[in-house]
Amino acid sequence: NPRSIAVVGATERMQYGGRFLRSVLTAGDQVRVYPVNPRYNELMGLQCYPSVTDLPESPDLVGIIVPYQRVIPVLTESAEKGAGSAIVISAGFAERAEEDRRLLQVGLGEVARETGVRISGPNCLGLANVKSGIWACSSSSTVFEKLNTGNIGLVCQSGASAFGPFLSRAISRGIGYSYIISTGNEADLEASDFARYLLDDDDTKVIAMFVEGFKDARKFLEVCRLAAQKGKPIVLIKIGRSGLGARAAQAHTASLTGEDAAYNAAFKQHGVTRVFDWDQLLEVSQMLADNPAPSEPGIAIISHSGGVCSLTADAFGHEGLDLPDLSREARDTINEILAGFGWAGNPADITGHASRDTVELI
Amino acid sequence: NPRSIAVVGATERMQYGGRFLRSVLTAGDQVRVYPVNPRYNELMGLQCYPSVTDLPESPDLVGIIVPYQRVIPVLTESAEKGAGSAIVISAGFAERAEEDRRLLQVGLGEVARETGVRISGPNCLGLANVKSGIWACSSSSTVFEKLNTGNIGLVCQSGASAFGPFLSRAISRGIGYSYIISTGNEADLEASDFARYLLDDDDTKVIAMFVEGFKDARKFLEVCRLAAQKGKPIVLIKIGRSGLGARAAQAHTASLTGEDAAYNAAFKQHGVTRVFDWDQLLEVSQMLADNPAPSEPGIAIISHSGGVCSLTADAFGHEGLDLPDLSREARDTINEILAGFGWAGNPADITGHASRDTVELI
Repeated sequence: NPRSIAVVGATERMQYGGRFLRSVLTAGDQVRVYPVNPRYNELMGLQCYPSVTDLPESPDLVGIIVPYQRVIPVLTESAEKGAGSAIVISAGFAERAEEDRRLLQVGLGEVARETGVRISGPNCLGLANVKSGIWACSSSSTVFEKLNTGNIGLVCQSGASAFGPFLSRAISRGIGYSYIISTGNEADLEASDFARYLLDDDDTKVIAMFVEGFKDARKFLEVCRLAAQKGKPIVLIKIGRSGLGARAAQAHTASLTGEDAAYNAAFKQHGVTRVFDWDQLLEVSQMLADNPAPSEPGIAIISHSGGVCSLTADAFGHEGLDLPDLSREARDTINEILAGFGWAGNPADITGHASRDTVELI
Repeated sequence: NPRSIAVVGATERMQYGGRFLRSVLTAGDQVRVYPVNPRYNELMGLQCYPSVTDLPESPDLVGIIVPYQRVIPVLTESAEKGAGSAIVISAGFAERAEEDRRLLQVGLGEVARETGVRISGPNCLGLANVKSGIWACSSSSTVFEKLNTGNIGLVCQSGASAFGPFLSRAISRGIGYSYIISTGNEADLEASDFARYLLDDDDTKVIAMFVEGFKDARKFLEVCRLAAQKGKPIVLIKIGRSGLGARAAQAHTASLTGEDAAYNAAFKQHGVTRVFDWDQLLEVSQMLADNPAPSEPGIAIISHSGGVCSLTADAFGHEGLDLPDLSREARDTINEILAGFGWAGNPADITGHASRDTVELI
């Protein structure tokens, strides 16, 4: 919950640096914002500083949007200034698949840990504390204000996914987030670290994750174990079901996806729900966030359409879920209400009753 | 393409009979409409007739929306009047799982075949010749006019699905149909018969089907064989992947879903695409309707997001599809255009180029 944010590499153009500045400005009075760029005296109505060293205070958070060669110098300077943490938007590190860039990323992580200025990124889009209205990101989308505050904490290695489909779909479905966190190449902090943080956040009821690979699988499994203890569900997309996905992930954030079968076994053991697309991640997370765990096993289906009944029943059966028979009493009572239009059962086709008061009774 | 439609059991209330009358009236001048109901002299501004016998001409099509006991007498009377065909909306037949009702349905089918007045239903919602703007159905939806005319012919045993989710989703996605046909219990004409008809319809490029079970599996496989010959794709949802679905289908339209593995083998042999939910049925059908078959195997992915690249690649790999490597020339040329923002490959993460003119070149 930063009170002061420096934006190093802020510009007036609506590219990464300009967007980051625009997004932190939406926080209004609760955050003091310091653009940093020697080429400007003023940006978006704010005084602009030539360097972090020149800032009037130690920033709680530094957004770093400079060419890759300058990231470590800026981070070092920020540490000397007493900065709290940093988000490195800059790309051009391990994802370039060149040895010197990979080493540069290793070095960046070392500087973060040595100085104590822990970083998200590089090659991320930043993060949002949705519940407080603080957006520290370079998202090109400007629809923040339409997003609901909610109980889902999203941790996403892909920034374009976090602030693209996961943002727009949540808005169109009225789904709310507590946090949106993109982690990028994870030179320092990993998806697991953010998930661990969200375990202790009372406003986050479900942790939704989109992960290409874990830098440290053991660390994630420890988070899963804690999540199970706390009864806080983790729902995730994990790339690597297929060789093609694994190859693409490596090209993207230089992640090694690992052995898929081993992940599946571990997820199952810890009650982690693995899903396979954006819609599933959102829908399953919302369902778990909004509904208490059922006290009895078994599901009942009612619908106005026999076709919907059989399609849904077929999908449930395919997933190994059960539709227990209704008790004779339930069946007879419902049939009485239906009065010949539809019939009780599991599933129950209640035809036109679906749009009447009788649906509550049923 | 009926020029005259009788609606037996038409009422002023917006239940099945009233809705059927309302829907046929949307055809305007191209169809002469005859409400039939001894309880009215006039309905929706039209003269109402006490019986089919009293009509001033032989109707091309008769909509039958009367209590189940009266369906066979009305059909017989329609045959005597010289009617062309009939749609039986009335329910209360084999789906009631009572022996006398099952026999009544068998009898209904026999009357249809003996008299030559072939029927859709019973327990269906009717059908729509979308391209001609003739809606002969009891759908409760009144959004017909928003639906596009298109190249997908939909054959759906479940009327509530055909005129519910398949109608509303097509409208919201701008997907167009040539026909929407609900077949219900299929006492006479089956889904296969309608699919066979659509094979010869030049305006239908793809046949989309939602089927619980085939009365005559051989007949459907013959249609599949012909479809493959003609190069007209069939995409279908077939209930019965699981025991629960099979049980629900039997309760709905008294369909026996059959041995699922045998169906899968037959579908594969004939190039039928089996899908598993509404969205897939619509999306796959539209893709096949709008796109020519590729001349070369292999798919390439480009996206503004590395996360989207890896997720899509993972899904493709999981389905057994290949993402061939780019040629060196293609790779180098694309990398030149990208100029360091993103990188060529398959998948290719083209970052901000996705929103620029360069995407066409790539």
